[in-house]
Amino acid sequence: MKLESEENFLELVDRYFPERRRGEPWGRGDDCALVPCSNSLCLSTDLFLEGVHFSLAYFSPYDIGYKSLAVNISDIAAMAATPEGFLLNLFFPPDTPEGFWPEYFRGLADLAGEHELYLAGGDLSRSGQLGIGITIWGSPGACISRGGGRPGDLLFLVGEIGLSATGLEVLRRGEKTADFPDSVAAHLRPRLYVHQAQRLGSSPGITALMDVSDGLAMDLPRLVGPGTGADLRLGEEDLHPEVLAHARQQGASAVELAFRGGEDYALLGAVDPFFLQELRDIVPEVRIVGEIVHEEGVRLNGDPAGIQGFDHMRGG
Amino acid sequence: MKLESEENFLELVDRYFPERRRGEPWGRGDDCALVPCSNSLCLSTDLFLEGVHFSLAYFSPYDIGYKSLAVNISDIAAMAATPEGFLLNLFFPPDTPEGFWPEYFRGLADLAGEHELYLAGGDLSRSGQLGIGITIWGSPGACISRGGGRPGDLLFLVGEIGLSATGLEVLRRGEKTADFPDSVAAHLRPRLYVHQAQRLGSSPGITALMDVSDGLAMDLPRLVGPGTGADLRLGEEDLHPEVLAHARQQGASAVELAFRGGEDYALLGAVDPFFLQELRDIVPEVRIVGEIVHEEGVRLNGDPAGIQGFDHMRGG
Repeated sequence: MKLESEENFLELVDRYFPERRRGEPWGRGDDCALVPCSNSLCLSTDLFLEGVHFSLAYFSPYDIGYKSLAVNISDIAAMAATPEGFLLNLFFPPDTPEGFWPEYFRGLADLAGEHELYLAGGDLSRSGQLGIGITIWGSPGACISRGGGRPGDLLFLVGEIGLSATGLEVLRRGEKTADFPDSVAAHLRPRLYVHQAQRLGSSPGITALMDVSDGLAMDLPRLVGPGTGADLRLGEEDLHPEVLAHARQQGASAVELAFRGGEDYALLGAVDPFFLQELRDIVPEVRIVGEIVHEEGVRLNGDPAGIQGFDHMRGG
Repeated sequence: MKLESEENFLELVDRYFPERRRGEPWGRGDDCALVPCSNSLCLSTDLFLEGVHFSLAYFSPYDIGYKSLAVNISDIAAMAATPEGFLLNLFFPPDTPEGFWPEYFRGLADLAGEHELYLAGGDLSRSGQLGIGITIWGSPGACISRGGGRPGDLLFLVGEIGLSATGLEVLRRGEKTADFPDSVAAHLRPRLYVHQAQRLGSSPGITALMDVSDGLAMDLPRLVGPGTGADLRLGEEDLHPEVLAHARQQGASAVELAFRGGEDYALLGAVDPFFLQELRDIVPEVRIVGEIVHEEGVRLNGDPAGIQGFDHMRGG
């Protein structure tokens, strides 16, 4: 269908999100959504723009719907919170094909359904460039922020790193996607770690948590904060076989690629070593990849590492 | 300053929004903002795009900052709620002049300061076109939605209509802005009716409330809802002298212009006539402009009126 007015938008929302939230007193399309909450709400917003965050050359409309929401869910997971609902801003050229929106909404609704998310409203506008802005909220739970780590705390990861960057390279260069199925999937429909994050939230001694969206190189300094540094130990045994295979093909260092590659949405955190065994019992997926140290800066396998990574302002 | 990274963005936020919210446990720049609330939160989001919602030809960066937030505050006012904080998404071409952002943030911060709003976070991205997406929240208060009016209820307005559309015409045609100062101001830095809305919230018998953003022609059907209609009575005495003067110059009908013109952010509501005197005592600014009727559709001074108005999908 053509998306030409607020009324069209509400029709699409009603078709793909037929269930209203229990207890939601108002219809959609009002000036505001009324969101139930107890003491506080986790709120986050992310942009997802054509030519920056995705390319129409290899993202299907379904993938765009899926990933535009996935990147937001990941921010809620990064707080060990539980995602509950979202608002959707769409802007797009008037000549966007009619078939685009039903597929976009299908991808959006499939992922929303998996996490029982409610779509409460939004805005739309014509634009020169296709773009999506989603604002998501969740109930806080354990509320683990980024900056609580102390020297001596162990750094851990849940999820792959470098896999999405490998998929992006494969897609950009037009390589055979069948040779790198996990990488391509990681880039188009990233895996989320909401449940692992919630288990981390119930695990003692977790001092910091975030999702790795811009790559370890950029995100690790954000986790450790000013006045401390990170000693990162990453080996080939920590990486997915496709990351190793692709780096070998390109004559590049797989570890370096995994260190700088963004958009895996893995969880990166810090744990007081006293609680390591309990963490391993509660979240067996954690992999220890180093520790927080007194000396500022990030060292990768002993050598100082530049912080340049993957930044949606600088390049895509 | 150049806005080139998340860190630059946080610097600007810290400079123009130096006060953190009391009780806010986390710094900005975390994955989510943690928003305190009691039982529920009013949430709304609006886009504000170059070439659609504003033109760089006659909006200063300060005006863009001001109005990008104003349109969002108005959605909170439209619920008789109290605005509390917001998230800011910015997307812009890499060649945006360095002087743009400090002025943008000054306009944003001035209006935010007037309403004691907190900026909790956001996202930024490069883009082909300058655009802003703001998500705002507020504490609900009386919670008056759009669709509660019944036949027999009186329609009322708080604020001017047609004034912003007049200002837009003056600016677009390059007419002498000094001849239409209120119109131009209404378009660039719209007046908001937050306090009037809160008084409406405490007034008995108010059955529906919204802000007029797309013009009465489009918004009135949204207020009365399906199965009822509106009998609107608008005379020249209801309009600002500049609206009358400009329409006269153009040989157009001022009433028609005011009926279709958008972006005044006046409050439009319905009141049970039994409570009219109390409403007048509590909110003396209200003007009665018609009533809700059984017959579907909108009549303007007795004649059926088309619903075509001002729509950011169709034109600007």
